[in-house]
Amino acid sequence: MNKNSSNIMALAPNTSNKRETVCIFGTGDFGRALGHKMIQSGYSVVYGSRSTQVSNLIPKDAEVLGHAEAAQKAAIIIIAIQRQHYNFLTPLAEVLHGKVLVDISNNLKLNQYPESNAEYLAELLPGSKVVKAFNTVSAWALQSGALDASRQVFVCGDDVEAKQMVMNIVRALGLTPLDKGSLLAAQEIENYPLQLFPMWKFPMFLSLGLTAFFFVYCVVLDIVYTYIYEKNDFSFFIAITIPNRVCPVMALILLALVYLPGIFAAIIQLYRGTKYRRFPNWLDKWMLCRKQLGLIALAFASLHAVFTLVTPLRAFASWRTSKGIISQALNNKTEPLNTTNAWLSDSYLALGILGYFLFFLLGITSLPSVSNNVNWREFRFVQSKLGYLTLILCTAHTLVYGGKWFLNPSAYKWYLPDIYMLSLIVPCAVLVVKFVLIFPCVDKPLTRIRQGWERNPKHSE
Amino acid sequence: MNKNSSNIMALAPNTSNKRETVCIFGTGDFGRALGHKMIQSGYSVVYGSRSTQVSNLIPKDAEVLGHAEAAQKAAIIIIAIQRQHYNFLTPLAEVLHGKVLVDISNNLKLNQYPESNAEYLAELLPGSKVVKAFNTVSAWALQSGALDASRQVFVCGDDVEAKQMVMNIVRALGLTPLDKGSLLAAQEIENYPLQLFPMWKFPMFLSLGLTAFFFVYCVVLDIVYTYIYEKNDFSFFIAITIPNRVCPVMALILLALVYLPGIFAAIIQLYRGTKYRRFPNWLDKWMLCRKQLGLIALAFASLHAVFTLVTPLRAFASWRTSKGIISQALNNKTEPLNTTNAWLSDSYLALGILGYFLFFLLGITSLPSVSNNVNWREFRFVQSKLGYLTLILCTAHTLVYGGKWFLNPSAYKWYLPDIYMLSLIVPCAVLVVKFVLIFPCVDKPLTRIRQGWERNPKHSE
Amino acid sequence: MNKNSSNIMALAPNTSNKRETVCIFGTGDFGRALGHKMIQSGYSVVYGSRSTQVSNLIPKDAEVLGHAEAAQKAAIIIIAIQRQHYNFLTPLAEVLHGKVLVDISNNLKLNQYPESNAEYLAELLPGSKVVKAFNTVSAWALQSGALDASRQVFVCGDDVEAKQMVMNIVRALGLTPLDKGSLLAAQEIENYPLQLFPMWKFPMFLSLGLTAFFFVYCVVLDIVYTYIYEKNDFSFFIAITIPNRVCPVMALILLALVYLPGIFAAIIQLYRGTKYRRFPNWLDKWMLCRKQLGLIALAFASLHAVFTLVTPLRAFASWRTSKGIISQALNNKTEPLNTTNAWLSDSYLALGILGYFLFFLLGITSLPSVSNNVNWREFRFVQSKLGYLTLILCTAHTLVYGGKWFLNPSAYKWYLPDIYMLSLIVPCAVLVVKFVLIFPCVDKPLTRIRQGWERNPKHSE
Repeated sequence: MNKNSSNIMALAPNTSNKRETVCIFGTGDFGRALGHKMIQSGYSVVYGSRSTQVSNLIPKDAEVLGHAEAAQKAAIIIIAIQRQHYNFLTPLAEVLHGKVLVDISNNLKLNQYPESNAEYLAELLPGSKVVKAFNTVSAWALQSGALDASRQVFVCGDDVEAKQMVMNIVRALGLTPLDKGSLLAAQEIENYPLQLFPMWKFPMFLSLGLTAFFFVYCVVLDIVYTYIYEKNDFSFFIAITIPNRVCPVMALILLALVYLPGIFAAIIQLYRGTKYRRFPNWLDKWMLCRKQLGLIALAFASLHAVFTLVTPLRAFASWRTSKGIISQALNNKTEPLNTTNAWLSDSYLALGILGYFLFFLLGITSLPSVSNNVNWREFRFVQSKLGYLTLILCTAHTLVYGGKWFLNPSAYKWYLPDIYMLSLIVPCAVLVVKFVLIFPCVDKPLTRIRQGWERNPKHSE
Repeated sequence: MNKNSSNIMALAPNTSNKRETVCIFGTGDFGRALGHKMIQSGYSVVYGSRSTQVSNLIPKDAEVLGHAEAAQKAAIIIIAIQRQHYNFLTPLAEVLHGKVLVDISNNLKLNQYPESNAEYLAELLPGSKVVKAFNTVSAWALQSGALDASRQVFVCGDDVEAKQMVMNIVRALGLTPLDKGSLLAAQEIENYPLQLFPMWKFPMFLSLGLTAFFFVYCVVLDIVYTYIYEKNDFSFFIAITIPNRVCPVMALILLALVYLPGIFAAIIQLYRGTKYRRFPNWLDKWMLCRKQLGLIALAFASLHAVFTLVTPLRAFASWRTSKGIISQALNNKTEPLNTTNAWLSDSYLALGILGYFLFFLLGITSLPSVSNNVNWREFRFVQSKLGYLTLILCTAHTLVYGGKWFLNPSAYKWYLPDIYMLSLIVPCAVLVVKFVLIFPCVDKPLTRIRQGWERNPKHSE
Repeated sequence: MNKNSSNIMALAPNTSNKRETVCIFGTGDFGRALGHKMIQSGYSVVYGSRSTQVSNLIPKDAEVLGHAEAAQKAAIIIIAIQRQHYNFLTPLAEVLHGKVLVDISNNLKLNQYPESNAEYLAELLPGSKVVKAFNTVSAWALQSGALDASRQVFVCGDDVEAKQMVMNIVRALGLTPLDKGSLLAAQEIENYPLQLFPMWKFPMFLSLGLTAFFFVYCVVLDIVYTYIYEKNDFSFFIAITIPNRVCPVMALILLALVYLPGIFAAIIQLYRGTKYRRFPNWLDKWMLCRKQLGLIALAFASLHAVFTLVTPLRAFASWRTSKGIISQALNNKTEPLNTTNAWLSDSYLALGILGYFLFFLLGITSLPSVSNNVNWREFRFVQSKLGYLTLILCTAHTLVYGGKWFLNPSAYKWYLPDIYMLSLIVPCAVLVVKFVLIFPCVDKPLTRIRQGWERNPKHSE
């Protein structure tokens, strides 16, 4: 998949009227791919290489020269070589003086070196203007044009002019530059492509831990207890019954954890009487991963929905149904419809459906393309009003599910509560405090604080 | 813009190696957040403030001066103060003469003042060039970098050069400027962040009204009627049974209402013999909210699907099943499989599944990021061909559901038809007229009219 | 819908300070819509037309002149006339010398003419600089502002400066220009709006063909066989039972076909000992439509899920349940719970649910707006690790479904295997080979080859 035929076709013979010349040091995959793309966009490209022998992989219209000669031909030099080989550039310091050097390198590990590659390059060649760019784009994506993963190119550098020149190239290649400030940002930019869902790490570990705990808790209460006291082997509950108990519990707790930090923030602001002091670190971090917590909660809720819907297809369910019907038939009687049961079962289901429906809507509005198309007021309306309505419906769904079992001693095996009772603690607490917070006597000072008012405006001097 | 002013300007002779200096009047939340972001992007920022005492909240690298001195230092002044205080700027008219003033203010209510804030500012300071911008961005979003809600910055102003300068700043901050024309557009831009889903208002009210009507209709026929004539208390039908009757009816009617305005437009164009006359206002508005109608219809269809799937889990359903089986068992006989019933039930379900599946595909293609990746022909193909196929399948689903009940007198309680019959009126009408419209003798003149042909081309002179 | 009120409002009285003048040849729909939008963005627009009589459809602030006079007023001329009339431009060659001509034309069929319209125009007027642009935007979208289908404007041309001028106009109109290189790319750009899901063609035909084959296979085995040997009329199986057999089979096969080309590529690279030789054409094409294959597989899997979930609602299902229960009741006995069956049924369902869940996640990450927000490593992690996990779960789901029937002779009607057995061939093959490929002794050389190492580095000279 090296050379894409359509690219070659579009390589222009527009001799008269070219964009500036760009030099690329290094003829590796990325150097070649970038050169190809640049020639296509109208730049002249000259490669700096140890061997000036022309490989058939290098784009046809590009020149290949020694490093020094190549560098002299252009104002911008793209350093497409690995950090280990940067020191060979020091002898070229004079030629590279005043030139724009674009560092595109990536490391293999997070924080592999004490300083970023770009800063290292700037130290080696203090006379050159180093700009970090292109490290988030892959050679394959450049060549195939399939920029599925990202069109954004982070750019940083200490020289504004040099940065502008590089950003113009980025734009000409059909990519979107994003200015990240001075070269100090290079470390962050170099770490970016090595990250694997950093925002998801804490929510994932939290939910894995909680899931494991609740799973074991359920296995003990539902399988071990039954086996010991009733001699029934319900080990197959591990496949569906227990997951379908753990999923809704996790969904409800995580959804409540999305709204808990907002409650804490409100209390802290009310207590301090100002919004101009930073929240504690743990709260800041928690608030930044609310979206991830919410999406994981949605995943658990979806699994709960599907696990519930397949219930009638299970061998266990049809066995239980038959047993009930046959015992009625053998007793020659038909039980009348219990209206209370019908009300409980239907309202339990209806609350769950509506809660899940709103939850799903919340999930859709967190898709980047949808949230880009709403204004700030609409976004807040959906995420806060609709979010709390979802939490209320889901909590009510769990309460109705519990129904009359709350006070029934047979529901407490080994004196332990069922997990759905545990799951109600956080959401009920959130809803009660939120209910207090919307009382006018609490809401008014809070709103004023959030608009900038301070109870005790000493600190800002 | 022929000499690519943005590039040239940005490759500026900004000697010391900074971008230009920008002045910000006002040290409130937004002023501080914007200043912070601008310093990060390489601008020099100077604040104009009443008290030049440096607060610890103001970005470290920014200067704080009196208003007049600060204004003299920059060509662009960002007015981060509220409209009520604009009149204090009039004494500064001389200093501000010829400068670019960026109005970033928002109001608290739609159309709060007769003229927009930006126009008011331009009236106060006729010698300055006023540009409206940044009002859709929140301070919090600027600071946290979490620009989830919107990266778009609407810009308008009467002076093209001033507008360009502001748009360059917008781009440098990593946001996307969108030129909305002259300062007359400021009113619209100022109203934008105050709107709450304006396109959804009419579709929402319409569907709420219809839903309420059908809900009451069903309660009367299914609960009240049964209670009066059969003495059965089926009040729990309110939770699931009746919603599951109303949802499909609403979904079908709203889906048909998506295609009805297209039918009207075709008839009007055929009648007038030209496409160069405006449609009546109500039709224009209707056509603009088709997407919203379709998405609400999809929501109802989704609810219908879930309500249907939970049926076997309901206490009522299992009671009814038991009753049927036990009565068979007590009579010592097994009913044979009724093939006609099996056909009806299976084809009814299959039509519904396929219809919903296509409907869901339509919904996915209306996601902004998906519709941005298809060309015009593909978009029309999906929205029109696939849309009509969906309407046909869903109508057929309802017809098969009705089955042999259409002519059965017992289906007409109190001589009123069941709501599924009411729901069939609009879609059947749409499909019949559409069927007529695709006949060649009607389709040909319509196509010619849509390509610009006029039966009676007087009007255009 | 000719004149949009918001457009009129924004038409500016900014007399003093205009952007450059642009000339538009032709006063058809697109010419008018473009002119309108340009005036709104601050350009002066002058129309070149045969009749200089001012139609009331032409934007008010635009001038209408003869072609030659109009062309003299502007550096950029937009040719909004059809290709058939291009030859009338030859007499104007002198006036148009050195001007930028923007070709916006589209054809009615793919490859209608031997050369692209833009190249034809460039041949006719060799002294002018031809740029291709705007052909993917519709007049209606320009006027209504509803750029749902696409904001991207492909631009190509041999003159870089002329291209820059056109791209600046594109940006000023709020659209996104994408430089496609020299005028040789015009053919491709002109074909673009005529395409109807070109990447979907092969995957669609493949899946339609396979679906038809499996459908007939199932009809023969399930309906014809039963009718001949058991005299039962199960023709209604066509509606749900058979689709629900074909869908999972198709989903599993297509999902395996997504990962098969990667396996082939690895084997070819291992065999050749280098990555610097092109794959055979069929493999390249196959790899480029993996996303489409995956999404079709997801559609089949979704249909399978819904078809399965409606099972308890079918008349056939309730008849079969009643029959089983009644026969037990008449024999006066209750069958005990078969734990093995419960295990099989539950784990079969759980595997399917988890597999589908991961599959759905894969589908979400292929949404353009989601994949734009992940970095390359994250994208690969999801598409490869999660993808293989999905394939493993779905294959296991099918294996457990088969269960003990694999070796049961009664499962082979007419000595033909059931289709779920056929569906297992490709995924099992993929998983086995992949398992071999991750052994260190195979994985190490492969990784080195993919990092650029060559076993036999002759070819590059």
